[in-house]
Amino acid sequence: MARRPRSLLGIEHLTPDDITGLLRLAKRLHNGRPRPLLRDRRVALLFYEASTRTRTSFEYAAKALGAQTALISSQSSSIEKGESLVDTGYTLQALGAQLIVMRHPSSGAAATLSRVVDIPVVNAGDGMHEHPSQALLDAYTMIRHHKNLRGLRIAIVGDIYHSRVARSNVFLLTKFGAQVTLCGPPELLPDVATTLGKGVRITRHLDDAIRGADVVMMLRIQKERLVHRHLNLQEYIAAYQLTSERLKLAKRDALLMHPGPIVRGLELTDEVADGPQSVIREQVANGVPVRMAILATAVGVA
Amino acid sequence: MARRPRSLLGIEHLTPDDITGLLRLAKRLHNGRPRPLLRDRRVALLFYEASTRTRTSFEYAAKALGAQTALISSQSSSIEKGESLVDTGYTLQALGAQLIVMRHPSSGAAATLSRVVDIPVVNAGDGMHEHPSQALLDAYTMIRHHKNLRGLRIAIVGDIYHSRVARSNVFLLTKFGAQVTLCGPPELLPDVATTLGKGVRITRHLDDAIRGADVVMMLRIQKERLVHRHLNLQEYIAAYQLTSERLKLAKRDALLMHPGPIVRGLELTDEVADGPQSVIREQVANGVPVRMAILATAVGVA
Amino acid sequence: MARRPRSLLGIEHLTPDDITGLLRLAKRLHNGRPRPLLRDRRVALLFYEASTRTRTSFEYAAKALGAQTALISSQSSSIEKGESLVDTGYTLQALGAQLIVMRHPSSGAAATLSRVVDIPVVNAGDGMHEHPSQALLDAYTMIRHHKNLRGLRIAIVGDIYHSRVARSNVFLLTKFGAQVTLCGPPELLPDVATTLGKGVRITRHLDDAIRGADVVMMLRIQKERLVHRHLNLQEYIAAYQLTSERLKLAKRDALLMHPGPIVRGLELTDEVADGPQSVIREQVANGVPVRMAILATAVGVA
Repeated sequence: MARRPRSLLGIEHLTPDDITGLLRLAKRLHNGRPRPLLRDRRVALLFYEASTRTRTSFEYAAKALGAQTALISSQSSSIEKGESLVDTGYTLQALGAQLIVMRHPSSGAAATLSRVVDIPVVNAGDGMHEHPSQALLDAYTMIRHHKNLRGLRIAIVGDIYHSRVARSNVFLLTKFGAQVTLCGPPELLPDVATTLGKGVRITRHLDDAIRGADVVMMLRIQKERLVHRHLNLQEYIAAYQLTSERLKLAKRDALLMHPGPIVRGLELTDEVADGPQSVIREQVANGVPVRMAILATAVGVA
Repeated sequence: MARRPRSLLGIEHLTPDDITGLLRLAKRLHNGRPRPLLRDRRVALLFYEASTRTRTSFEYAAKALGAQTALISSQSSSIEKGESLVDTGYTLQALGAQLIVMRHPSSGAAATLSRVVDIPVVNAGDGMHEHPSQALLDAYTMIRHHKNLRGLRIAIVGDIYHSRVARSNVFLLTKFGAQVTLCGPPELLPDVATTLGKGVRITRHLDDAIRGADVVMMLRIQKERLVHRHLNLQEYIAAYQLTSERLKLAKRDALLMHPGPIVRGLELTDEVADGPQSVIREQVANGVPVRMAILATAVGVA
Repeated sequence: MARRPRSLLGIEHLTPDDITGLLRLAKRLHNGRPRPLLRDRRVALLFYEASTRTRTSFEYAAKALGAQTALISSQSSSIEKGESLVDTGYTLQALGAQLIVMRHPSSGAAATLSRVVDIPVVNAGDGMHEHPSQALLDAYTMIRHHKNLRGLRIAIVGDIYHSRVARSNVFLLTKFGAQVTLCGPPELLPDVATTLGKGVRITRHLDDAIRGADVVMMLRIQKERLVHRHLNLQEYIAAYQLTSERLKLAKRDALLMHPGPIVRGLELTDEVADGPQSVIREQVANGVPVRMAILATAVGVA
């Protein structure tokens, strides 16, 4: 991980060994009964953006390890009084927090925070930058389905441009030699995205992206962003919605993944979301042991 | 209860034995020291509407039984991102929640959720449909005051039309042979309400409803609803406010009940709210053991 | 403290012995490992105003003593339905809360609440009235820096008029014979403020206030209040911002204090906020043991 204390700010600067270590620990914690590795440690959940799954997942993970949690969200805190991020960090550390899990709308916010506090910071999503715990749980999910990341063919489809999930996944997967194909219209997927990792390929055609894929990862589409970029919703759906018909182009045992929350009828159909290849709920479930591993590693007790 | 897992969706489809079982368990839990029946179980509190007493009551009940709780409210969650109720349910289950307590503005929402998840759902109020834990704690309160439900005369006064509390109470009380009189103006109490249960009677006159009653249950009036239905506030108060004078028409030891929050000076006077016949605070207190019984029964550990 | 149960409503009516007792207990709790003095007690955190540090500080303090906490904030509760403060208090007591920590925008709200409930109320800030836990942690911080309160020279600078922190500090410090100088423009510091305590002095000049001071306590300035009072921001900064240059007028080992949240570049510069004399973060850290002492004393277990 990036520095001592062992903050988790993103995937980009982790080594494959860092990642493998986290995933192995997650597996051990998943299989065993949770041990109170964080007994009486104080974990601050600092959320400047709304979240259900990520926040609750970290909260359950922390509590399962015996930690005391406190949620600080932008709805009910000094954040509203204009206190700077840096001073909020100083405050939480002074209050005795031993780890901060933060989601923030600005790219780089977690790194900024980690530079000023002496306790580890876990990035739970920062702007359009990274969402490392999501990429880790996605890799964990692929591996549990006996997918070897080396040479694995993964299509990531949708609004790549705004997606911290896509970025973290590309960083992780290409470190292990996976072949990543990004798919979407130019407005949501600029050509420069090929530079995110080694061997990243871009296509504008969904069929092309899916054909022969081991994993199809769909991203959430925000209607406002389509409008903002002058994209027509119906045309977008016609070109990029994942249907059962289209999913047949992938390998027979291909996994359908999505970081959630899904918008049924937009980026994917009900049939696909609830179909036999969907591991969407498994991703959520795997998030808890993966985040337990992240917390334990960050605090240095694992 | 309705199905395995033993969700509590409403009173309507419970048997008298189901109800009696829950109330007996509540009494045992009330008298004894709380045992950690839900130790380390994860309870999700999913609140799409504001709530103090119901939410805090379930939260304290869950914690008293040793559960880990997580609150997901519409103010700070993916609910805001337009995720469907069904997908939120899948997510909470995948996160390891072993029970969901939900309040939702739509009638039937708890039933919808319970059909898709494999964990019990406890309805903490769904639109204008049911609020079963409230009816159970109301019955518990009456019984603790040595009221035998069979033949008991209960007046329920106010905005019956919009009240899930009234519906759940009518269902419960009529199952045990109580005589329920509903009272309010036609705009807030349609004639069809007599079909809610056996022997339900309607009156438009408060004195008529109260005379000889064993229990007078006042409901909260929302001023906006009066306005919306072209009812004059002063006329409403003149006709339907419970005063000490009027309460004398009931039996001498009649109980004054209210599910809260009360609006002093509207549906009842200060004198009545704080008077010797008022058991309003007792209702709140009884809510905790009743909800402990509900949670323990739903999880199947009782 | 003011009454049995031992609510903490303000500093004004405490005796020096009350205060010394609380500070000594805080020190013992600070040095030792937290004991579960409040094991399984239910603490309600009732916040009608946004707060990070005070709320989180009380929450961590309560949990460190083994209490079960429930947060009730105006964003997600019956408070929104117009329930009166008094009835919210009755409800929390009925739910089994054994102590209420409350922040409220109205001066006197904590006293009002404490008159109706039979459980202790701890005032976490009420309007422009008092913020006793802040004054206690401020005194605790001064004493830890070997400052003897008797004869200590303390400058409090800024918007004294709206500040419950200033009031509570003046009450506490003058009880112990400290010499308090208040500083600010007439719009934010009326002449009548000298009557707050014995020996309180007013000055309109920052240099005059700081010269020879043992402690300089800066208060947060809300821009809206400057505008509302027709004060020019640039002029205010020129006259009242604490800079390193100005801080040199104080004693060499003078402490720089601030209750937070700070507004960098307004009431103080970065250099001062992060400088060697700043004990701002220490104040936050000291808040936890001081609040543990307050909670334990209020419940009567200390």
